[in-house]
Amino acid sequence: MQVVMGIDPGAANLGFGVVRIEGSRMVALDGGVVETSPELPMERRLERIHSALSELIAWHQPVAMALEDLYFGKNVHSAMAVGRASGAAMLAAAQGGVRCFTYTPQAIKKAVCGSGAAGKGQVQRMVGTLLGLPEPPTPDHAADALAVAICHGGGVGREAALASVSKQPSGARLAG
Amino acid sequence: MQVVMGIDPGAANLGFGVVRIEGSRMVALDGGVVETSPELPMERRLERIHSALSELIAWHQPVAMALEDLYFGKNVHSAMAVGRASGAAMLAAAQGGVRCFTYTPQAIKKAVCGSGAAGKGQVQRMVGTLLGLPEPPTPDHAADALAVAICHGGGVGREAALASVSKQPSGARLAG
Repeated sequence: MQVVMGIDPGAANLGFGVVRIEGSRMVALDGGVVETSPELPMERRLERIHSALSELIAWHQPVAMALEDLYFGKNVHSAMAVGRASGAAMLAAAQGGVRCFTYTPQAIKKAVCGSGAAGKGQVQRMVGTLLGLPEPPTPDHAADALAVAICHGGGVGREAALASVSKQPSGARLAG
Repeated sequence: MQVVMGIDPGAANLGFGVVRIEGSRMVALDGGVVETSPELPMERRLERIHSALSELIAWHQPVAMALEDLYFGKNVHSAMAVGRASGAAMLAAAQGGVRCFTYTPQAIKKAVCGSGAAGKGQVQRMVGTLLGLPEPPTPDHAADALAVAICHGGGVGREAALASVSKQPSGARLAG
């Protein structure tokens, strides 16, 4: 059994998700969003992110932090903020003795859904399925962070979940 | 008198420069580079940067940290590293009670040389002149960090330095 913390980095809304890998299945332990006000100076926002993640790391004692790699297609200003938030998260990991791993959006989609071209909603529904949740997790940033954690776990349980879904009439669960 | 710490962010080589503004002139107090090995995992490199800057902040007690804004023209991989290093530096500032300010390369060049189109070598020589150093400071990353600190100080002494330079035969000092 190992605990993995997934991170969807952002300065305004940083998603986190904590999963435990139990053999051939994964269990969600925690998930949520660290929100910081745009009215705060950037360094204060980073301090808040660092402090919140340090507490979560001390609580859950993950063996790894998995982060979504930055997406630089947006704009320079938001990319800088994402990079800085990612740095604050990685620093909390290092100080807690936790190794970090980064994954591209494509790798995450592939690990969760079996295809790097899966849509956002599809990923979120599959995250719910893999973690045995009654509904896809919310908010979006938490679901995205759980997806990164699942990716680090190698998508444990995906094949079984996909097989079970394909037996349902017209794939209702995934098409939901 | 106020002390300003300038930062030229980077994961492999992070330049720092500390200046004290004394009325109409600036004095260099410190400058150098925090180097981290590419063989270390990124989170360890960020930890080293954070730790080194935390010590420098405790030592020099700056009132402000001035950082060069990220340059995203390079490539995505190095831009991510710069963003993360910048985040680690800002976090050290926040934890030391130091406000952060960011400046674009153009703003830095303009503050130091009077023109946003100044060349890199010209900026470094002018940094030496403004700080009353016998030579332009080295290494480059330290000189760049001192330039950011000078920019935050509003380029104090620039007009006088430019006037003095223009009185020298054929501008020997600036043309180096």
